[in-house]
Amino acid sequence: MGKTYIFGHKNPDTDSIISSIVMADFERKMGNEDVISCRLGMVNKETEYVLNYVGVQEPELIEDLEDGAEVIIVDTANPGELIPNLSNVKIKKIVDHHQVLLNTAYPLFYRAEPVGCTETIMYKLYKENNLEINKKIATLMLSAIISDTLLLKSPTCTPDDVKAVKELSKIAEIEYEKYGLEMLKAGTDLSSFTIEQILNLDAKSYKFKETNSIIAQVNTASIPEVMKMKEDLEKGINKIIKEKNLDLFMFLITDIINSNSQTITLGRRADIVEKAYKVKLENNTALLPGVVSRKKQVIPIITENA
Amino acid sequence: MGKTYIFGHKNPDTDSIISSIVMADFERKMGNEDVISCRLGMVNKETEYVLNYVGVQEPELIEDLEDGAEVIIVDTANPGELIPNLSNVKIKKIVDHHQVLLNTAYPLFYRAEPVGCTETIMYKLYKENNLEINKKIATLMLSAIISDTLLLKSPTCTPDDVKAVKELSKIAEIEYEKYGLEMLKAGTDLSSFTIEQILNLDAKSYKFKETNSIIAQVNTASIPEVMKMKEDLEKGINKIIKEKNLDLFMFLITDIINSNSQTITLGRRADIVEKAYKVKLENNTALLPGVVSRKKQVIPIITENA
Repeated sequence: MGKTYIFGHKNPDTDSIISSIVMADFERKMGNEDVISCRLGMVNKETEYVLNYVGVQEPELIEDLEDGAEVIIVDTANPGELIPNLSNVKIKKIVDHHQVLLNTAYPLFYRAEPVGCTETIMYKLYKENNLEINKKIATLMLSAIISDTLLLKSPTCTPDDVKAVKELSKIAEIEYEKYGLEMLKAGTDLSSFTIEQILNLDAKSYKFKETNSIIAQVNTASIPEVMKMKEDLEKGINKIIKEKNLDLFMFLITDIINSNSQTITLGRRADIVEKAYKVKLENNTALLPGVVSRKKQVIPIITENA
Repeated sequence: MGKTYIFGHKNPDTDSIISSIVMADFERKMGNEDVISCRLGMVNKETEYVLNYVGVQEPELIEDLEDGAEVIIVDTANPGELIPNLSNVKIKKIVDHHQVLLNTAYPLFYRAEPVGCTETIMYKLYKENNLEINKKIATLMLSAIISDTLLLKSPTCTPDDVKAVKELSKIAEIEYEKYGLEMLKAGTDLSSFTIEQILNLDAKSYKFKETNSIIAQVNTASIPEVMKMKEDLEKGINKIIKEKNLDLFMFLITDIINSNSQTITLGRRADIVEKAYKVKLENNTALLPGVVSRKKQVIPIITENA
């Protein structure tokens, strides 16, 4: 058996990076020694905080793989978020919590559940196979769930996620509320990024009927702090709209303390956001009370109103 | 929560029918009371033998469902084998052991493993959730695994399937070799079928590059017994080729005792079968020693040679 490459989606978030590390640990414990954790992009500040805290190295950066390579995919089943020659590699496993968007020509191990975080499923896999979760792995898993569920406050959070966090925090010997807030705050540090980078940190492309869109998101502990950059953000957004011929760019500045988002929305179809949330964009911006989850509170509503 | 409809593929085999019954039992045990076992076609002789043996009714025959209905899909993830308005129903779960061929617009519970039978995965689900498997359910599950793996002899059979059969036969208090052979033999009784029905019992359509094909299979305890109908089978095959404008019809008569298949192959691209198995079709027929699994020993080889 050759090497197995494990990776999550491009623009990796904490769940994608941690899933590639945790899945490698899981595979080794299951007897598959020759596995390698990989990533398809830069590690973000929040993830960096976690890896430093635990003392674990970043997964290896890859862009592409040889045809025929064996891979395990985590935290996505969307070919658009993966390597270009996906159809020429052999997918051995997928563990994910998103929609099903890829097809295969062969049966494989596919495990998806509609929970808040891939690590909640990984936690079940360890338990089902009677494998030990050590302190480092528990801390990593815990961090990913806190990240994806915004400290269990996101509407994507399920009872399974809460249960996993509580049990993992015992193994990790961590007060998860305190640790989680520090971790989330670390992810809100935008000081070292250019405007272009901020707009790209967690940007996803969508086509809603005829509307070519990007919906990007940053977390913050203070919306006014990010809004200081409003003029520059708008310039950056307009540049991307022009370059990519977009109809809509919705930028979400999500307050992780109070669970609200401020949006800066531009593009000739900005009206979709006004219609979807029954708000008026004043100078391209509006507060969306209670909105924190792109998956649950943005994509379905924009889809419906596009 | 409304009713949940559970069904497997069209032209249902024993695994598809039993999976819809077993999944309903599983869901009820998990607290989802309002579930209904369904089927998308006629129950075959083998399945009939099992249902009579256990004393369980056939699932309800359906052809279609209302838009918005909630469904659980078992033993397939191929939209072509399912209801016509699949994209308008809400798929809550999929449990399967085939390739991934459908996409969804939402996250769902998806559990696939490359094992010999869906029931081997269902067996794991009961165990993972600490649910009791009663004697009837154990007999049903056992029967499906024996059916899909031809009494653990098919190349699709994995150690997980063997383990499940051994443990389930204890709960069922059944000598599985003896029972399994009787069950498989019951499935080979073609006496009540017309030629057209025999060719349709387990027929699947494929497109190999430009080659429109059907690969159909029947099990038998005696190849010569089925070959007595050769002339009529050929007439029937040629009729289907003409009606459906096919390039290839490969009919497999599989000897479940000795693990061989005799093929009757017709169509202008019958040469693909000759090339694939390095055999000469004499009067449209050839013996394919050791070939029993369409999934593992036919589809990949025909795909490669088409």
